[in-house]
Amino acid sequence: MAQELREQVETICRAAREASWTLASLPTATKDAWLLRTAERLEAARPTILEANERDIEESKAKGLAAPMVRRLSLEDGKWENMVDGLRQVAALRDPVGEITDSIVRPNGLRVGRMRIPLGVIAMIYESRPNVTVDAGALCVKAGNAVVLRGGSEAFHSNRALGAELRAAAADVGLPEDAVQTMPTTSRDAIDHLLKMDRYLNLIIPRGGSALVRKVMHESAIPVLAHDEGVCHVFLDASADAEMSAEIVRDSKIRQMAVCNALETLLCHRDAARRVLPTVFKRLQEDGVEIRGCPETCEIFPEGVPAREADWGEEFLDKILAVKVVDDLDAAVDHVQRFGSEHTDVIVTNDYAASQEWLRRVNSSTVGVNCSTAFSDGYRLGLGAEIGVSTSKLHAFGPMGLEGLTTRKFVVQGDGQLRE
Amino acid sequence: MAQELREQVETICRAAREASWTLASLPTATKDAWLLRTAERLEAARPTILEANERDIEESKAKGLAAPMVRRLSLEDGKWENMVDGLRQVAALRDPVGEITDSIVRPNGLRVGRMRIPLGVIAMIYESRPNVTVDAGALCVKAGNAVVLRGGSEAFHSNRALGAELRAAAADVGLPEDAVQTMPTTSRDAIDHLLKMDRYLNLIIPRGGSALVRKVMHESAIPVLAHDEGVCHVFLDASADAEMSAEIVRDSKIRQMAVCNALETLLCHRDAARRVLPTVFKRLQEDGVEIRGCPETCEIFPEGVPAREADWGEEFLDKILAVKVVDDLDAAVDHVQRFGSEHTDVIVTNDYAASQEWLRRVNSSTVGVNCSTAFSDGYRLGLGAEIGVSTSKLHAFGPMGLEGLTTRKFVVQGDGQLRE
Repeated sequence: MAQELREQVETICRAAREASWTLASLPTATKDAWLLRTAERLEAARPTILEANERDIEESKAKGLAAPMVRRLSLEDGKWENMVDGLRQVAALRDPVGEITDSIVRPNGLRVGRMRIPLGVIAMIYESRPNVTVDAGALCVKAGNAVVLRGGSEAFHSNRALGAELRAAAADVGLPEDAVQTMPTTSRDAIDHLLKMDRYLNLIIPRGGSALVRKVMHESAIPVLAHDEGVCHVFLDASADAEMSAEIVRDSKIRQMAVCNALETLLCHRDAARRVLPTVFKRLQEDGVEIRGCPETCEIFPEGVPAREADWGEEFLDKILAVKVVDDLDAAVDHVQRFGSEHTDVIVTNDYAASQEWLRRVNSSTVGVNCSTAFSDGYRLGLGAEIGVSTSKLHAFGPMGLEGLTTRKFVVQGDGQLRE
Repeated sequence: MAQELREQVETICRAAREASWTLASLPTATKDAWLLRTAERLEAARPTILEANERDIEESKAKGLAAPMVRRLSLEDGKWENMVDGLRQVAALRDPVGEITDSIVRPNGLRVGRMRIPLGVIAMIYESRPNVTVDAGALCVKAGNAVVLRGGSEAFHSNRALGAELRAAAADVGLPEDAVQTMPTTSRDAIDHLLKMDRYLNLIIPRGGSALVRKVMHESAIPVLAHDEGVCHVFLDASADAEMSAEIVRDSKIRQMAVCNALETLLCHRDAARRVLPTVFKRLQEDGVEIRGCPETCEIFPEGVPAREADWGEEFLDKILAVKVVDDLDAAVDHVQRFGSEHTDVIVTNDYAASQEWLRRVNSSTVGVNCSTAFSDGYRLGLGAEIGVSTSKLHAFGPMGLEGLTTRKFVVQGDGQLRE
């Protein structure tokens, strides 16, 4: 049985790899035709797919799955429209494949350039939301990659129904059907087998809880694009405007709290503390945010709870904000380096030198001046799409779009050149 | 004892990480001063270092280490001069850190760009050649990274002596000494501890045998830049010039045989086989290369040995060449995709359409037209330096220079922009 499952997973991965060779050099027009055809097919199959989705929801409720998890399973409430519309948006994006950059002529006459190419085969491992099947499938294939989709067992019927349309649309437009693979089983062992398929897979993208991400990183020799925690900071510099500070802190903390770019620790320059913090805290109080402050913070804001050491660097994902008054920009940078997660860190300042020093010295994936941490997002930064936010510095760091799903090869043209 | 060693390794890695924060924003001038000062110091310390090197060589001989391994240990025979000269060459290279590209203004007025930054802390694990201590240390630090150097136990004394000069030069010019770390022990267990230091290390580069590379990939959750095997192909197209074919095949096969960019399988278009192969084989015969051919090859060249299935995709690293006659370019591409290792693959042709199709369809890290496979090399492709040849498609694919030791962050400048 275990052997049989392993072979099933291997067959899927091998088929994806062979399809990736054809897919890699297909013209953009064929890939875009597939995206648009998929959108048409999904609309035509809407009743059947929503029926499968309903079945997943019923079964999950029967199994006692938590209500927020069940809600995330649903394709209703605008999610269907976003998913179908997303396909048309991806079709409109520029295809990164084939672009040649860094072209030079070497002294011996060799013409050298670097051509952007697909990665090959990408495995996506994700939970609940079945729309990821379509969203991620669309981005991977637009960048010329075959994709192996392994959604959660709770969304099995929805994912199978969506996957069938992705494959049927491929057959319709002459794109290799095997470029899109879904798992024919809900067995969790299939993930373990998938992690061993380094012969066929070029990249694994786990989308889900920290436990899943760590499992994939530790158990697989295949490169992983990890989306791990975000401990984001805002630093209010000596010259920070009080009103702008309050607005940016509020937007960074409150807009969405359970996301990786939400604010977790606020740092404030001592020279600004008494002038700026009261306005900031007043705004946060209206939203019921708990302040966990250093002694100086609690002096300014007696309603605050004294912060414990463990609060620095904590990803609360909740209505809690750690606040520390620091000596200067140096101390703020030092705190971010020691306790941050190199995700998103913003300074609020009107001091030019301070702004530039922050941008230069804080090496987080997104570093900002006078803006909300919530802009750390592929769409907001102009990538046109987002497959995820990488917390590893290799390959892609931060929000990742189509280009992150590609690599570059050296293209060398000669007239008989030899090394010797 | 095991606990003590673990703590020793952790102390080293933590110190490297803290040093990396300072190093990351040092001006280029300080890093270049360090490179030049290191060159001076090495020259002054030459007698002491060569004495340490002599001790490694004597001890290795006494332990019965194989002669080629002992030879690779030596810093004599021009290796010293290359090592010291290399420092000055790296000083002359352009510093990639701080470069901003892809700058755009978003509709809401946010200015977004991507700034090149160091990776952080890089661990190098290597064998024998002690010059890697200096070569790799120089490249990592020039790109703004702290480096943890773990050379082989057989070169322990040489590596310690070289490492001491790298650190002393740092102190001389005001670069943090802890940016360069060498292992104070020959214990192999230190590698196992190093592989677990994901809190401090951003990248591991193993340079050594396939066993070492695979160990690191399988046992560590830290991203790895793997330098694995190269099964390189040359395809002689229907229009290939016989003389150019013979020269390119000879240079690709014979110049250096034990390197990853050496030719292993020759493919030949059926329409060119009888015209071109005899010239090619005659040239290879002079160098004593064994031909392992498909039936058609052996018909043309009766001295050839019939190829076995296992010869396709084999990395001989020796005076052996597998040769196959194929129907056309499609069959050649298919063979390369099935049996190649995506390293370096070259077509010899005078047909424009064929040359462009090869460049487009073969997604190896270096793909060439009418040139030797030996050009797959960082220096020859114009990178100015080479830290290795990556066989993984993530981050860097193929020869990797200074830029491969960096990543990019998003730099966002606003005037109070909010998401909501």
